[in-house]
This record gives sequence, C-alpha cells and structure tokens, in this order.
Amino acid sequence: MKEIYLDNAATTEVDEKVLKAMIVYFKKNYANPSSKYVAGIKAREAVERARKTIADKIGAKPSEIIFISGGTEANNLALKGLFFANYPSKNYIITTSIEHDSVLNTCRWLEKQGAKVTYLNVDKNGSVDIKDIEKAINSKTFLASVIHGNNEIGTIQDIEAIGKLCKEKGVLFHTDACQSFTKVPINVNRINIDLMTLNAHKIHGPKGVGALYIREGTKIIPLMHGGGHEKGLRSGTENVPGIVGFAKAVELTKQKDIDNMKKLRDKLIKGLLEILNTKLNGPSSNRLCNNVNVSFKDIDGETLLGYLENEGIYCSAGSACMSNTSEKSHVLRAIGLDERTIESSLRISLSRYNTKKEIRFFLEKIKEIVKKLRNI
Amino acid sequence: MKEIYLDNAATTEVDEKVLKAMIVYFKKNYANPSSKYVAGIKAREAVERARKTIADKIGAKPSEIIFISGGTEANNLALKGLFFANYPSKNYIITTSIEHDSVLNTCRWLEKQGAKVTYLNVDKNGSVDIKDIEKAINSKTFLASVIHGNNEIGTIQDIEAIGKLCKEKGVLFHTDACQSFTKVPINVNRINIDLMTLNAHKIHGPKGVGALYIREGTKIIPLMHGGGHEKGLRSGTENVPGIVGFAKAVELTKQKDIDNMKKLRDKLIKGLLEILNTKLNGPSSNRLCNNVNVSFKDIDGETLLGYLENEGIYCSAGSACMSNTSEKSHVLRAIGLDERTIESSLRISLSRYNTKKEIRFFLEKIKEIVKKLRNI
Repeated sequence: MKEIYLDNAATTEVDEKVLKAMIVYFKKNYANPSSKYVAGIKAREAVERARKTIADKIGAKPSEIIFISGGTEANNLALKGLFFANYPSKNYIITTSIEHDSVLNTCRWLEKQGAKVTYLNVDKNGSVDIKDIEKAINSKTFLASVIHGNNEIGTIQDIEAIGKLCKEKGVLFHTDACQSFTKVPINVNRINIDLMTLNAHKIHGPKGVGALYIREGTKIIPLMHGGGHEKGLRSGTENVPGIVGFAKAVELTKQKDIDNMKKLRDKLIKGLLEILNTKLNGPSSNRLCNNVNVSFKDIDGETLLGYLENEGIYCSAGSACMSNTSEKSHVLRAIGLDERTIESSLRISLSRYNTKKEIRFFLEKIKEIVKKLRNI
Repeated sequence: MKEIYLDNAATTEVDEKVLKAMIVYFKKNYANPSSKYVAGIKAREAVERARKTIADKIGAKPSEIIFISGGTEANNLALKGLFFANYPSKNYIITTSIEHDSVLNTCRWLEKQGAKVTYLNVDKNGSVDIKDIEKAINSKTFLASVIHGNNEIGTIQDIEAIGKLCKEKGVLFHTDACQSFTKVPINVNRINIDLMTLNAHKIHGPKGVGALYIREGTKIIPLMHGGGHEKGLRSGTENVPGIVGFAKAVELTKQKDIDNMKKLRDKLIKGLLEILNTKLNGPSSNRLCNNVNVSFKDIDGETLLGYLENEGIYCSAGSACMSNTSEKSHVLRAIGLDERTIESSLRISLSRYNTKKEIRFFLEKIKEIVKKLRNI
C-alpha cells in the first residue's frame, strides 16, 4: 500500500539533496570546526557558508545566526537567555495562549524564577489583538514572544505590527517561526524582530538542528555554557552535517512549491467542507500554506486517524509534539472550541512532496470514513 | 598526500555502518516518534532500541538514559538541573580544576545564581585526591562532578572510590565520560554513579547527539522545557537518525580495538620519549587508551602543528573545543606545567582507524621536524 504522509507540521522527510550534502561532512570532512588545520577549516567554512545561507533568507547578518539543536532549544534560549539578562530590573513577559509548548512551559518555569508572564487570549481565528499587547506592556516588560505561524491551526500573526509596537515601546520581540520559515517571507530588517526561532526538520532538513536569530547588540545569557562556540552563546561541538543539511534545505525551498501547497490546501479545505457538519478551525485567510485543521461533528478524531491509517494515510489529531501526553490541544481550546469539537479535530499538514493525486485519494477516503463512522 | 588523523579526542570520522543505520531514519522512517501511527511507532521503536543498547553498555535501565544534543548539553543539564532541584536548601558543588569547559563554565554561571563551588586541585598526573573530596564535602554539598577520562592528558580518575565516598556522604556523583565511554568499562550498578555524560561523536558516531544517564529517583530540573519528551527531562523532537547512529557506534566498539589503541599509544609514547628533552604530560598508567600528550623543550606547539600538517598529519596543541579561544590549556596548568612547557605541548589522540604504519610514519616525521625546529 502506498503511504500518504500528511503530517508535515510534525516533521518531514529529509530531501535526497540534503542528505547528499550532509554525507560529505559525516565521512570526508568530519573534522572538528574548531580545529585549526585544513580539515577543521573545511568544516568551519561549511558552517559559515550555511550561516550565510540562513542569514540571507531572513535579511540578517551571518553573525546574528546562532546554530542550536532545534526549535525547542531556540525558544528556551530566547526566553531564558533574555530573562537572565534582564532580571531583576525587568521581569515581565508577554506571550499568547497558542504558543508551542516550548514557549509556554519555559514561561511557566520562568515564573518560578521571578518572571511575570501575561498569556494573551486570541480570537476565534487564533489572532492576537495588537491592542491587547499594547495594554499588557508596562515599564518592567522586557519581552513579547508571539508565534509567527501556528503549528496546529496555521494562523499567521501580524508580526509587522507587533514588531513596530515593540520597537516603539522598547520591548524585545521574539517570534517562533518554526512552522512559517521559508513558507512566509520574513525580512528582519524590514520588520522589527529581535529574535527568531528557526528549525530544519519542518522543511525537509534533518532533526536535531535549528537556529536562533539574535539581533546584533541584544543582551542574552547562554543556556549552554562550555567551550564558547557560537560566539559564546551556544557551546558544544557544532553539528556540522546537520548545519550543512539545514542550509541545503533552505536553498531548496521555492516559491512555486509554496504556491502549489496553497492550491492543495485550498482544494483540501473545499473538499472537507463538502462533508456535512464540518468546521474549519483557524483562519480562512492569512493561513500557513500547508495547514488544514477541521472538526467533524460527532466523530472521534483518534478513531478517524485509525481508519485513515488503514488506508495508508498519516495525519494528526493534535500536535505531534504533544502526542506523548494525553492532554487536549491548548490551541483549539484557546480559539473557543468545546471539548467535543476538539476531540473531533483533524490536522492535515502538507509538504512540497504531496501531490494532487494524493489529495484526491485522501478526500475520497475521508468522505467514505466519516460517512461510515456516522452510521455506526 | 595521505592524511593521518590523530585528533580523535576532538572528534572522529563517522563509521560507514553508523551512517548506513542513520540513512534509514532520514529517508524511509522519518516520521516523528511522538506520532501514533505506524510510521511514528517505527521511529519510536528505533529510539527505544537505541536507548536499550546504551543502557546495556553501562549496566543501566533504559529508563535512566536521556537523549540529548551532546556532551556539553548533558553536562549543563546535570549541573544546572541538580542545582535548581536542590537550591536553596543545598548549594555546594565539588569539582576539579581539570574538567571540560562545559562543566567549569557552567559552575561559574551557577556561582552567580547562588552556588558555592570548590575547584579541587589535582596532582602532577592529573589525579584528584579522594581525601580532598572528602574534606570539601559539607552539609550543604549536593554534588561532586569529576571527569572520568581527561580529554587533554588522558588521566582516568578512580571513580569507584569517588562513587563510594559520595554514596556514604549522601552527595550525588556526576562524571563526564565523553572521552572514556566504551574505552573504559563502566557499570553504574557496580560503581555508584548518579549521573554520567556520554556522547556519540568521539566514538565514530554523529555530532549533535549524546546522552545523560540519570539514576532512577534522582530529582532534576530540565534545562529544556517544552513538549515533555524524554520523560519531561529533555523536550524537543528526538534526533532519531542521530540516536540510531549513536547506538550503532556503541555496538561497533570492541575490546580488541581498545587493546590495539593501547599498543599504538605505548608505541607512540616510547617513540616520542626517544626525542631528547621530551616530557610525557599526564599519567604513565591509568591513562585513556587513545591519549598521548607530550611537551618538547624549546619547541612552539603551534609551529609544530603547522609542520605536521604539511606532512598530512593532524593533531592538536590544546583541546580542540577551546581552539576558538587563544586561552592556554587550564588542564596543563593544573598539573603544574609552566607557560613554556604548555606552549610546547602536543596532543595525539587515536581511534580504531589508526594503523601501525601511520604511527611509524608519524614518529619518523616528528623526529625530523623537532630536530629541524631546534636547529633553527
């Protein structure tokens, strides 16, 4: 049976070209980039080329990119690093109720260390109101952290407006762009973003590598102390093959693939809403090109997943990062869904590998399954 | 020109079989191990098999192994995690002056958070005196952290005695075993070790992955908050290919390779000491099977490295992890070497890939080069 992978917000298949680029640094140029001999210099040059590729993609300087083990570490470094750099003179953080767990649970830990955190509500589309951010800012606020593209419902926040406000108010602005990176163009020169979380494994790059953009001059305390790698901000031998693979993954992203994902997404939404008593969760515009989230009245999401899997189709009922817990989606709750609607939700997330044919097959099958389940 | 890589304490070449094992999880079984469908379950099973392999190697339970991005992160988690779990009721840490920077610089940061750290001196061989540890323990001491095999001079500490003492005194014992893992047998059931740092890229595994052994029941606060991966102790999507590669690297280690490295090491030491005015740094027994460190009177180590590189030979003058700084080795200073002797030092570190022929060639060349440099 052919498998149809529609859970690309959880992770993606590594591109053949990414793997090929990495293999050179596993085998031939394996030296430590801190070593001063030619083999080490080759590894160092590869890391610096990768840094430039990623910096260029967001309009940053290479020196503003710190390589790190992934999105979770980048979010932890951003929040904890800024907290320890600003505490106790400033200790207020503003964030939203629909952040990734790596932001929310970091905030909860920081509260125990003396931080005061405002978790802003969002509207039914998952958008945060800029006026709410403005109201929450006080003289002790050092940071606003707002996710760019939501991992569950695809809402893209107006980070341009948030950045502008933060700059006016003298508050640092961090955005978790794990889901939106390369899918929504971002230029940190045009938009005021002080820190941005990026990762590789959502864009056909390897797991275990990501980056944190940190605007030049931002005071931040490292999370990882040690040999002083990454300008002292992230010690530990650089994951050279991972970094090289990350950059290659970025290079391989193309506008036409984004356009194609958008078309497939819209086809999916249209097809799914043809099923009676189906509701789209998240916004109808300003939505990630690869995200669909729907609830089917009277259907159990977990059961639905099982039936889909029987057809070789993989998607997700909640956020994959949360599948180790049985907790229900805090994002769906935040946009006002009741428990039954949350339990009947399905997330379908695309990549450039998905085809029209797959989407046709998926729609055909899900219509059959929902009908069957409703008849039971 | 054939390259001879003698800097295996800095990093190692990834084994072909390790890479082969990893590729399956980059391409075919790429799903997120937190996903509940069969593709995710396959990734989860691979992670759990790897965990068992690593646990078995040290006599631990699989549930006591936490996967992490590498040795630096493991050391940071061990020290910070225990500090935040014990502070303020206990706040004293005992460590040594020859630890890796990821321990030393973490301790320095913890001092700013309220920790009191004793940095014990070592003798001229790099050994810490168990009596010094005993004297340093007080009622507020929660942790002793002592490196198992030193990365620069190869000293293997008597961790059995340290473990015994710590257990008697009710102090947790952490050891950084990045250099010794698979080279010196360790059984955490026989020896009282509460936490142990392990990594992959020193044993022909990939960069960017390591593990922390944490004895069951040890109270520790995570360094990385988020989705609750690794029993809540290390959030972030698991680096599945890295973890699989790490376990494969462990599986590939063999006693005969260790015996062979020992022979080559002794051949190297013997040959090097035939050069006039050459001094072995570190112990003559209880030394890592792959470590040699010598000083050549009146020779500049950096210059020597350059001449060796011209012959295709790579080794190190300090610790590679420190090459980004121009700081002189704190380890060589700790064993009482004066500045000139430190500057004239050379570290040669072996792997199972090195051959007798390479060692012969190296000895031949270094004798010529030292002679030439002394004649200048």
